[in-house]
Amino acid sequence: MIAVLKPNTSPEQQEQLIKWLKNMVTDVHVSRGDAYTILGLVGDTSRIDQELLESLEIVESVQRVSEPYKQCSRAFHPEDTVVQVGSARIGEKFCVIAGPCSVETEAQIIDVARKVKAAGADVLRGGAFKPRTSPYDFQGLKGEGLRLLSEAKKATGLPLVSEIMSIETLDLFEDVDIIQVGARNMQNFDLLKELGRVDRPILLKRGLASTLKELLMSAEYIMAGGNEKIILCERGIRTYETMTRNTLDLSAVPVLQERTHLPVIVDPSHATGQSKLVPPMALAAAAAGADGIMVEVHNDPPHALCDGAQSLTPEQFDALNRQIRRLLEAMQA
Amino acid sequence: MIAVLKPNTSPEQQEQLIKWLKNMVTDVHVSRGDAYTILGLVGDTSRIDQELLESLEIVESVQRVSEPYKQCSRAFHPEDTVVQVGSARIGEKFCVIAGPCSVETEAQIIDVARKVKAAGADVLRGGAFKPRTSPYDFQGLKGEGLRLLSEAKKATGLPLVSEIMSIETLDLFEDVDIIQVGARNMQNFDLLKELGRVDRPILLKRGLASTLKELLMSAEYIMAGGNEKIILCERGIRTYETMTRNTLDLSAVPVLQERTHLPVIVDPSHATGQSKLVPPMALAAAAAGADGIMVEVHNDPPHALCDGAQSLTPEQFDALNRQIRRLLEAMQA
Amino acid sequence: MIAVLKPNTSPEQQEQLIKWLKNMVTDVHVSRGDAYTILGLVGDTSRIDQELLESLEIVESVQRVSEPYKQCSRAFHPEDTVVQVGSARIGEKFCVIAGPCSVETEAQIIDVARKVKAAGADVLRGGAFKPRTSPYDFQGLKGEGLRLLSEAKKATGLPLVSEIMSIETLDLFEDVDIIQVGARNMQNFDLLKELGRVDRPILLKRGLASTLKELLMSAEYIMAGGNEKIILCERGIRTYETMTRNTLDLSAVPVLQERTHLPVIVDPSHATGQSKLVPPMALAAAAAGADGIMVEVHNDPPHALCDGAQSLTPEQFDALNRQIRRLLEAMQA
Amino acid sequence: MIAVLKPNTSPEQQEQLIKWLKNMVTDVHVSRGDAYTILGLVGDTSRIDQELLESLEIVESVQRVSEPYKQCSRAFHPEDTVVQVGSARIGEKFCVIAGPCSVETEAQIIDVARKVKAAGADVLRGGAFKPRTSPYDFQGLKGEGLRLLSEAKKATGLPLVSEIMSIETLDLFEDVDIIQVGARNMQNFDLLKELGRVDRPILLKRGLASTLKELLMSAEYIMAGGNEKIILCERGIRTYETMTRNTLDLSAVPVLQERTHLPVIVDPSHATGQSKLVPPMALAAAAAGADGIMVEVHNDPPHALCDGAQSLTPEQFDALNRQIRRLLEAMQA
Repeated sequence: MIAVLKPNTSPEQQEQLIKWLKNMVTDVHVSRGDAYTILGLVGDTSRIDQELLESLEIVESVQRVSEPYKQCSRAFHPEDTVVQVGSARIGEKFCVIAGPCSVETEAQIIDVARKVKAAGADVLRGGAFKPRTSPYDFQGLKGEGLRLLSEAKKATGLPLVSEIMSIETLDLFEDVDIIQVGARNMQNFDLLKELGRVDRPILLKRGLASTLKELLMSAEYIMAGGNEKIILCERGIRTYETMTRNTLDLSAVPVLQERTHLPVIVDPSHATGQSKLVPPMALAAAAAGADGIMVEVHNDPPHALCDGAQSLTPEQFDALNRQIRRLLEAMQA
Repeated sequence: MIAVLKPNTSPEQQEQLIKWLKNMVTDVHVSRGDAYTILGLVGDTSRIDQELLESLEIVESVQRVSEPYKQCSRAFHPEDTVVQVGSARIGEKFCVIAGPCSVETEAQIIDVARKVKAAGADVLRGGAFKPRTSPYDFQGLKGEGLRLLSEAKKATGLPLVSEIMSIETLDLFEDVDIIQVGARNMQNFDLLKELGRVDRPILLKRGLASTLKELLMSAEYIMAGGNEKIILCERGIRTYETMTRNTLDLSAVPVLQERTHLPVIVDPSHATGQSKLVPPMALAAAAAGADGIMVEVHNDPPHALCDGAQSLTPEQFDALNRQIRRLLEAMQA
Repeated sequence: MIAVLKPNTSPEQQEQLIKWLKNMVTDVHVSRGDAYTILGLVGDTSRIDQELLESLEIVESVQRVSEPYKQCSRAFHPEDTVVQVGSARIGEKFCVIAGPCSVETEAQIIDVARKVKAAGADVLRGGAFKPRTSPYDFQGLKGEGLRLLSEAKKATGLPLVSEIMSIETLDLFEDVDIIQVGARNMQNFDLLKELGRVDRPILLKRGLASTLKELLMSAEYIMAGGNEKIILCERGIRTYETMTRNTLDLSAVPVLQERTHLPVIVDPSHATGQSKLVPPMALAAAAAGADGIMVEVHNDPPHALCDGAQSLTPEQFDALNRQIRRLLEAMQA
Repeated sequence: MIAVLKPNTSPEQQEQLIKWLKNMVTDVHVSRGDAYTILGLVGDTSRIDQELLESLEIVESVQRVSEPYKQCSRAFHPEDTVVQVGSARIGEKFCVIAGPCSVETEAQIIDVARKVKAAGADVLRGGAFKPRTSPYDFQGLKGEGLRLLSEAKKATGLPLVSEIMSIETLDLFEDVDIIQVGARNMQNFDLLKELGRVDRPILLKRGLASTLKELLMSAEYIMAGGNEKIILCERGIRTYETMTRNTLDLSAVPVLQERTHLPVIVDPSHATGQSKLVPPMALAAAAAGADGIMVEVHNDPPHALCDGAQSLTPEQFDALNRQIRRLLEAMQA
């Protein structure tokens, strides 16, 4: 951590600050320039509140040199983390997660599960608890939805991913292989802490106005509790552009992969909100080096109970999957 | 609701859609132009999923005419809602909420409470459960913090506001007069639903990347559960500007007041992150017509355990309060 | 254009408005619902100011049905526009534009030109007039820079693209095959109008906070003057994320290609600001269906006079080019 | 300037960098920590390209300590700059600029001028050259508009402010007392340089996605040319919120006033786009300490050729002005 002192601070003020800082860190290196004096803080600076230090009268600015996250940092854990569910090895081999936004009926979820499996999906997604902006919108089948997902798992062997909204419902997720934390709950820290104590992979979606650093800090919350099986998911951020629902930030993929050992997947369906934009963005995600994609597929998009506009048909999904495989082969060559 | 059909749609396609829509609404008015056909849907359109309708092949665009929120809408409830706590009548008389970011010690919270009361504060704020970006940062004194707040209430008579992060802790909030939902939990819908069943005023902060419509929808979640005592709070939104922590959106005040009967207050401390910006922004909030402000005050900002950089001293708060009173008197004249 | 009238407007007010509108358009269709009355305006509505209409007391909202751009719209010109320069056919065949941010010396630009040509570039880029945020930064070699670019063109046969900042310098661009309008000048309407009268392809970069609709309207400015050879370029937009310089919006590629017949290329260098992010984003752009990329290449990035941090070496560029070709072949298969 | 070197850089690499830097600055202070080595660069660092330095293999990060702007910085010029036009002393006394978005007819502009003068306006605004997103929209009366403004000046004695879009039209602005640079031209650096050579006050509007630092750098462009009479104007920035046209960033007022000696005014009309939001935001601007406001007033808003939706009537403007005066008196007391 580096603190820059303002010009015209007296030697007494400087000494007082240095003395105070030395109580908290191993050493303080002082570098005096014509105008500014610079303090280099050596040792464990995690106990120092950066904004507090910046608020002091004689301090011009403070810069943290090391990252505030540790367990999810690649610096502390250079090898890629691989999350295994079923035959999928996420972080090692490109993973395709597919399924409907919401579980609606047994026939629907089993039909979609069979079709996405046939097209090559590794994991089945399906929402049972749905966060909706309006209290009057369909909120998911809840426990019954999770039960139907289990049926689809039995019928196809596909592992499951589904979103949790409250830790009280955890018991209902017994059969769910990957527990999803949605964008709106990325900073629901109490939920993250609880999931840190769960022995199940967590798919953590980026909040729609969260920085990548905040996403990593939220992963750190889960890891601090002992759960190291986390999959990060870029799903579009909020910008001023209105022709897409959100702006898919694909540079998040290489930026995250440089900083963390956790796998990074991309959800092009929620990011764009339009089914015709899903294939080009899914291909782009694969080309950018993503560890997988999560795509909405519905057997009857116009009659889907939610987000039908962004769902692919099983046929479109099959065609997309073939293209992705060709692309990945070409890039590995 | 208005649906615009694409040019070159066949009469058969149009009739099929109109028939389908007629099953759901009272009537469908058809207006045929040179290129576009426009359907005006009459009746209760809340059952129609706008994005689904837009996703149909023959539909160009869909526009909702009436607002998706009802109970918090001024159209359905023209008179201002007034939330009474202690002697404060929020929504009727300018309300000043003040106190430290975090409760730290009994001496601290009682000292601050006495000083802000002397300066004219109506309500005491103090954080016991603190949402922090990093799992390694101070997370608040929790139950003990709420106990200390009760002591400060006893000592001064000031009603209390404090943030809840999880409904399991509700019992601990027995003595808290206004329960705060923080920006990060504005779309924690499960928490909102639970608070809809609580008979206590809720202070709902705008998410840092939430639209005003989303803020109103979150208020609607609480009201749908039966709790009508909601105070909305603008606290800055996330933009690309880096010289302030967030960008305080003061136009939110008149925009919200036109659309809802709920009181709207402003938090200039979190929005700006810098104590020297708090007085001008607090004055601006009062001039914009806000129903009150919530300001951080600490008896020793440089040693505050969190957000010391944005806290006013009691003396600065007292001076600000005097200025606000002069401003309000001048504007009422 | 559709205008929705507020509930409780009197028949007299409605008739007055309808009469006024009938003077301006071919016909006005009226559709009366329980609460709202909807006017469908038929004919040429381009003379009607949408915001003015919305400002009227009795009008609830106004929606434009047809797009405000015409000449660049795919609806009016379904076939792809192909811009030919040298052997490149932009809009038909993937085009690679490469070269240094700034022209620095004759040796530098000729060296880079030879190397990018050998690696497969179709067009040489090089800045002579540089828009810099600070008046104290290097502003480019100006006329001398353009002269050196001509030398590189002579030496390699590569066509040139370079940025213009002011129409007064147009004469100096005689040898430049594609004239670039930078992000900061995307809404310099006087410059766009002048370029509408020039018989040379224009590469129009998206402003860093411009919507895609605004980008198309700026293209419309040029086309309205008679110049139809326009190449659009996505180069990242401004968001709150700080780990990249800007956020590359790759969904702009399919969104624009649906709405316009103009070619759409991507600049991953300026978007990310970091050379290591350029290859994954360039590959993603190709996978998303872009008509080409524009990449910064410098023979000695650490000593580049500007933007060295985002420049590839010729070797990195060569490797990237090979990968792109494999990816494109795989996708066409 | 501070450069942080990465862990595990060899002493040879460090020495090489330090030697290179010593050629450019007065001195380099070295502070070695457990992991990081920190270089404090002393002397004139304006010749060092920050991004280039950051791009070096062994450099972790670089931080500029002193601001990149000089002439507009309060550090170099502590006293407030006061711009005098007519009887207005902008920067010393609250200044009210008012008038129509566009000059339309002689009768209109003279009528508005008389009415805003009677209500207490100090300066008359009126657009003659109008930057419009669409080439098909009304672009202003141009030279004729400026002539009509002169007539209004003769009739009322009010000094004039009007927007310039291209330096070629400067001769037409002979009678204009303050030349406005619009938001879209804030980084039209060629225009800024030319205006640096003009002996006339410049009103520089913040670009709608420009940081405050960039606004100051654009002011620096003008000052670097010798023109020191600059008025900065906050007019709303682009965010994701859609209920207002832009988000008025009032914290810009105290933030800028701390950093620069130039006056800072606020334009609530363009920021909000709605006349009913103008009075609360104008009052808030005054309360935040702005040096003035610029407000659109039209004698017949529903028939204004542009931006009628955001124009006040003369009566509304008069009432607003009275309230502002009361507010300012109360705050000075």
